[in-house]
Amino acid sequence: MGPAPRVLELFYDVLSPYSWLGFEVLCRYQHLWNIKLQLRPALIAGIMKDSGNHPPAAVPRKGQYVYKEISLLKQFFQVPIRFPKDFSNVVLKKGSTSAMRFLTAVSMEQPEMLEKVSRELWMRIWSQAAEKAGMSAQQAQHFLEKISTEQVKNKLKEITDAACKYGAFGLPTTVAHVDGKTHMLFGSDRMELLAYLLGEKWMGPVPPTPNARL
Amino acid sequence: MGPAPRVLELFYDVLSPYSWLGFEVLCRYQHLWNIKLQLRPALIAGIMKDSGNHPPAAVPRKGQYVYKEISLLKQFFQVPIRFPKDFSNVVLKKGSTSAMRFLTAVSMEQPEMLEKVSRELWMRIWSQAAEKAGMSAQQAQHFLEKISTEQVKNKLKEITDAACKYGAFGLPTTVAHVDGKTHMLFGSDRMELLAYLLGEKWMGPVPPTPNARL
Repeated sequence: MGPAPRVLELFYDVLSPYSWLGFEVLCRYQHLWNIKLQLRPALIAGIMKDSGNHPPAAVPRKGQYVYKEISLLKQFFQVPIRFPKDFSNVVLKKGSTSAMRFLTAVSMEQPEMLEKVSRELWMRIWSQAAEKAGMSAQQAQHFLEKISTEQVKNKLKEITDAACKYGAFGLPTTVAHVDGKTHMLFGSDRMELLAYLLGEKWMGPVPPTPNARL
Repeated sequence: MGPAPRVLELFYDVLSPYSWLGFEVLCRYQHLWNIKLQLRPALIAGIMKDSGNHPPAAVPRKGQYVYKEISLLKQFFQVPIRFPKDFSNVVLKKGSTSAMRFLTAVSMEQPEMLEKVSRELWMRIWSQAAEKAGMSAQQAQHFLEKISTEQVKNKLKEITDAACKYGAFGLPTTVAHVDGKTHMLFGSDRMELLAYLLGEKWMGPVPPTPNARL
C-alpha cells in the first residue's frame, strides 16, 4: 500500500468557464495522481460578495480579454466552451443559484453522479450541446423538487462559506491538503503549481489517459 | 536557415512581482524557443488607470492570497522574490515612475544592458539582495540624469500606450506575433499557453539550460 491520497477540494460554479477548465483538468488527473478529488459545488456570487471582489467583465478590457482567451484555452484544454449567445441574460441576470442548488441536491443523495451532472450543466450553459449524464427525467424531476428545500439551500451556503473561510475570492478555488498543511490555490491556471506542491508530474491540461496504449 | 523567429513583446514593470516571474521565464526560454524577445519597460500605474483596473491588493483577500502564493511561486520558478518589509511605502506610495524611466533611458542608449539592469532593479525592490548588473557608478549616474528628460518620459508613455492599445489591463503582458496574427496574453501564468500558440515545448518555469550536460 502506497501513501494515502492527498485530499483536493475543488470549489466551482457552472457559471464560470474557468471553473470548467479547472474541473476537467482535475477530473483527468484524479486517475493519474495520488489524490482524492472532492467536488464542492459553491456559489460564485456569494464568494464575490463576501470577498468584495468583482467579475473580470467589470473591467471592460478584461472582459474582452477573457472572451478572446477562452477561444484559445478551449483548444489547448480540449474543453468545448462557447460563450452563450445570450451571455448577459444567462450569466449576469439569471445567475446560477438554481443550477448550483440542483448540483448540491445531487451531491447529497447521489454523489457518484456529481461529476457527470456538473459537466452536463456546463455543456448546457457554455456549449449549447447537450450531453447526457445518464440521469432519467424522473431523477432530474426529483432533484429539481429538492432545490427549494432548506437542507439543500443550507448545504450550498455551507460549502460557499467553507470556500470563503479558506480565503476564496473567486472560482475555481482548489484547496490541497498536503502533509497536514492546507494550500488554497485560485484559478484554472494553478494546476502546474498544484502538481509541484503534490510532488506529482504535470503533463499539460490534456494528460495521456491511463488506458491509452502508447 | 530555419523559419524566422517570432517576435514576443514583454511589457513589464519592476513594481510587479508577477512581471518578474514572467520576465525570468521568457529570458530562460529565449535561448530554447525560436523567438525574438523584446523587453518593453512600461508603467503599471498608467495601464491600471487607462483600463480602469485595480491592483489585486484592492481586494484584501486577494492581497493575502498573493502574499502567500508568491512564497510558493518563488520556489517553483526559482526567482528569489521576497516582499519588501516596507511594502506599502515602496510599492504603493513611491511607485515605479523613476525606476521605469531609468530602464527606459537604458533601453534607448544601451539596449543590450536592459535585461541585466531590469533584474537588478527587481532584486533591489523584491529581494533586498543587490545583484550587480555590471554598470559603473558613472553609467548609473548618466542614466539617472536622463530620467527627467522629455525624450525618456515620452518614450515610457509611448510604450505604456502601446501596451494599452494591445488591450493590456495589467502587467506582465506578453504580445506574441505569430503568422501575421497578434496574441495578447496576460500574466506570468500564461507561458504554457504561449508555448502552445508558438508550437514550442513547455518544460515548466525552470527549463534545462542549453549548456547543461545531461
